[in-house]
Amino acid sequence: MSYIPNLRIGLTRNTLLKNFIIGNVGNVGRKRIISFRYFANSIESSTSGAEIPAKKHAPTKEVSFTADKYTYLHRNHNFKELTQDDIRFFASILPASGLIIDNEDDLMPYNVDWMRKYRGKSRLVARPKTTKQVSQILKYCNENKLAVVPQGGNTGLVGGGVPVFDEIIINTNNLNQIRSFDPVAGTLTCDAGCILEVLDNYLAKRGYMMPLDLGAKGSCHIGGNVATNAGGLRLLRYGSLHGSVLGLEVVLPDGTILDNLSTLRKDNTGYDIKQLFIGSEGTLGIITGVSILTPSKPKAVNVAVLGVNSFQNVQNAFVTSKNKLSEILSAFEFWDSNSLKLLKAHNIQGTKFPLEDNYPFYVLVEISGSNKDHDDEKLQNFLEELLTNEIVKDGVVAQDDTQIATLWSLREGIPEACSKAGAVYKYDISIPLSVFYQMVEDIRNRLQSAGVLGEDKLVKDVIGYGHIGDGNLHLNITAKSYDPEITNLIEPYVYEWTEQHNGSISAEHGLGLMKANYLRYSKSPSMISIMKQIKQNIDPNGIMNPYKFLPAQ
Amino acid sequence: MSYIPNLRIGLTRNTLLKNFIIGNVGNVGRKRIISFRYFANSIESSTSGAEIPAKKHAPTKEVSFTADKYTYLHRNHNFKELTQDDIRFFASILPASGLIIDNEDDLMPYNVDWMRKYRGKSRLVARPKTTKQVSQILKYCNENKLAVVPQGGNTGLVGGGVPVFDEIIINTNNLNQIRSFDPVAGTLTCDAGCILEVLDNYLAKRGYMMPLDLGAKGSCHIGGNVATNAGGLRLLRYGSLHGSVLGLEVVLPDGTILDNLSTLRKDNTGYDIKQLFIGSEGTLGIITGVSILTPSKPKAVNVAVLGVNSFQNVQNAFVTSKNKLSEILSAFEFWDSNSLKLLKAHNIQGTKFPLEDNYPFYVLVEISGSNKDHDDEKLQNFLEELLTNEIVKDGVVAQDDTQIATLWSLREGIPEACSKAGAVYKYDISIPLSVFYQMVEDIRNRLQSAGVLGEDKLVKDVIGYGHIGDGNLHLNITAKSYDPEITNLIEPYVYEWTEQHNGSISAEHGLGLMKANYLRYSKSPSMISIMKQIKQNIDPNGIMNPYKFLPAQ
Repeated sequence: MSYIPNLRIGLTRNTLLKNFIIGNVGNVGRKRIISFRYFANSIESSTSGAEIPAKKHAPTKEVSFTADKYTYLHRNHNFKELTQDDIRFFASILPASGLIIDNEDDLMPYNVDWMRKYRGKSRLVARPKTTKQVSQILKYCNENKLAVVPQGGNTGLVGGGVPVFDEIIINTNNLNQIRSFDPVAGTLTCDAGCILEVLDNYLAKRGYMMPLDLGAKGSCHIGGNVATNAGGLRLLRYGSLHGSVLGLEVVLPDGTILDNLSTLRKDNTGYDIKQLFIGSEGTLGIITGVSILTPSKPKAVNVAVLGVNSFQNVQNAFVTSKNKLSEILSAFEFWDSNSLKLLKAHNIQGTKFPLEDNYPFYVLVEISGSNKDHDDEKLQNFLEELLTNEIVKDGVVAQDDTQIATLWSLREGIPEACSKAGAVYKYDISIPLSVFYQMVEDIRNRLQSAGVLGEDKLVKDVIGYGHIGDGNLHLNITAKSYDPEITNLIEPYVYEWTEQHNGSISAEHGLGLMKANYLRYSKSPSMISIMKQIKQNIDPNGIMNPYKFLPAQ
Repeated sequence: MSYIPNLRIGLTRNTLLKNFIIGNVGNVGRKRIISFRYFANSIESSTSGAEIPAKKHAPTKEVSFTADKYTYLHRNHNFKELTQDDIRFFASILPASGLIIDNEDDLMPYNVDWMRKYRGKSRLVARPKTTKQVSQILKYCNENKLAVVPQGGNTGLVGGGVPVFDEIIINTNNLNQIRSFDPVAGTLTCDAGCILEVLDNYLAKRGYMMPLDLGAKGSCHIGGNVATNAGGLRLLRYGSLHGSVLGLEVVLPDGTILDNLSTLRKDNTGYDIKQLFIGSEGTLGIITGVSILTPSKPKAVNVAVLGVNSFQNVQNAFVTSKNKLSEILSAFEFWDSNSLKLLKAHNIQGTKFPLEDNYPFYVLVEISGSNKDHDDEKLQNFLEELLTNEIVKDGVVAQDDTQIATLWSLREGIPEACSKAGAVYKYDISIPLSVFYQMVEDIRNRLQSAGVLGEDKLVKDVIGYGHIGDGNLHLNITAKSYDPEITNLIEPYVYEWTEQHNGSISAEHGLGLMKANYLRYSKSPSMISIMKQIKQNIDPNGIMNPYKFLPAQ
């Protein structure tokens, strides 16, 4: 995240928190062992990975083909294979720089996902520069039954943005113009291929910011964000894209350009069709333009990290934050002690950690407001309430931007630490907070009982972290390698568990190829039936991102 | 609106604003004629109507039948007429108290809308108590091609909630149970027939509130709010229902119960089908249950009303409010001098108005936050900035709940004042702020040029008011009576004007019967074609709320 430069962070004018350094909580009249204190200046900042890292790993030829790895997948023979005639057509629409054809090395970064888990066999990448080109290309593909994969920054986690077989890749890299910005209403209209961070920087100069933020912001495209209904770090405060996207321009499979690029906050004229494309993962059309409502950029930001002894108290701290921080609360994240152990083991966070003792749970609270003094006072009242009610045991508050970044890197470094462990089984679950951490414990017990969990065993660790404020758990199971025995112990157990607790098997990552066949765990047959009807209506030839999103059966 | 009782409102500890009373703005070093001051205690509070008044007018037999008034409408002969067999079926599903059959007086409040503009000829009202009953009824109606109108609190403004011919009315009055509330996550699940105000009161006791508020809250049902995507007074702060509705339970025309009553903030599993039903105005199914995310109830609320000399400065004040009030800004409303003239003429607001002089424009700014001292200081900085930059000329700040209500009643009393003028042509438009008030001026000039505008002429006045924060203009044209000459001068001109300026012909009121045939002014043929496909798929017999929403051709 980027904050306003030269921002002064810290509670320098308040003295109450300093008391906690010496373990004296005056307002409850007794000494404590609590060492609530400012973040030591000696701790150095580090930048690290995130749930969706900003940098792509270089894909290599070692990555197995998806079609070889997942043998249940079969190429749909209704789709035509690419011919020289087709190539001539594409060359008539796009300049040479907008096409990559039959060059394995050049095609590789488009055929392989950044996690190096999926690899397609596409022979052609088209990189149109205009909506009209997208329309011409899709119309041709639809008439000729050439399957396509829409692709943005290729930062997805579920194999949705790369081909499975020989689908043509339509990449939005060259659709990268900001079309307009209204500084009164705060509405931005831009091409789908604009990079999230570029947009955020553009807005920052004008006192606004994007309503979403995520680790991949340096690579991901706004069109991809919308197509996958990306959640990320600002959802708690600014809501989902279903609320902030005001309009879309979408090219349908038959080449029709749906112009719904409204910048109006209110528009009750007919079914809200654009909503169907938000989170449709490229299965209904290609988003070419986005209008989005952008919030004012906060003038002051601060972060605290707290040590908590029970998950019940994590919940209590969340309720207290809603009450005491209210309109300035902008993130409420958590991770467990095993996550921290992993961070330390892989030295992600430098040599020193801000809290001296170990706690079962850690919470990161971010505040963003328009008046630093007010925000500091609210934060102080919040922390005081937590200590008075013995909800937290220890904590630190950042004093400057560097410390804010360092505290965030604790949370954001966890996926990177996991990836260093060997293989990682990653699950992205929404569940009610009342049973939120129980899932981690149940999985841990299950693997323990099966005798596969331990330092020298197949499974190394089971960790939980994520967005408490959004009810979104990232369950990561680290292992020596991907092993069918482990997979069978986890799946479909984790999906069944989620279903039983009215959760979602994909909170924010989407379905892609990975979870298409598990949709039934979160949606009823009637719901899936309507989805299939919609798909059939809008994409009757099924050329848009096939094999993914909806279950085959 | 209801606020926390015993709340202390006012800037009693600050002195800066008091200077404005004597016209001395210290920080710019010179005297002014500005009389920025506290709201005089002598002004009495009054409650009044609103855009959608809370109380229904008693409908009478004098209201013409819709079918007689709009002769382009013809009953669809594919629909069966009600028979004794049908009545026997309904009586087997519902108790006598749940049915009204062939009693004209008893049917009247369901056949006639509260504005007394539309009157249907239904012979039967069904008031189911359970989702299963709704399912049984709809399945029967679908199989027997009996057309139906879903009806909530019957507070709509476009004739969407009452029948046109003999459609069966399925009213949600008896679906009125709160199903669950999660005090940690702030998620509420309830029946569709719960009254908005009842839900808001229920939540207030638990420190939360509904994310929407509107004049009709004492009558309207949450199911109707969702079905019409109601906007209202809190949209600027809490966003649209597309963002805050987490899940829906919907009965489809064939009786299928779509259970998507999720309470999860994040769920990326498949197309977000519930979005189709938000704003579908009962044309796809009947919403029977709603899950919604509720925000924490603000601990402090205050309101200021400002006099402004130009619409450019109304916009400047809005930008300043986003900058200075930021996270505590909860409403930014405006009205023009003609609106105030009308309020005074009809004595809606008692005898005294808070500002002494007349201004071309008035702005109401509401703030809601968690710390009164902080909010007061932010409000003061905001007002100081406005005065320093000569954006506003005068203003008042409420000192208590009564004064807050009085200031709000200025804005909310305008529709009532309009309705006292005789006939009112009401338009509910979204347009970019840059051309927002130009529409009012253009219409005024048009009527002036046609020689029909003036005290003794057909058209009395053209007034503009609405939600600046949402870009939503309420254009009201008051006249002696409804007259085809006036209608032809206004329509389709107002719709064409809206189309030319990329606006929406319905910002928040919906389409209903009134605007179904004007949809093309806001949506392209491709968009309307997709809407019709969706309607055809989900409601192939077209029994759901016929003659409305989508254009006949």
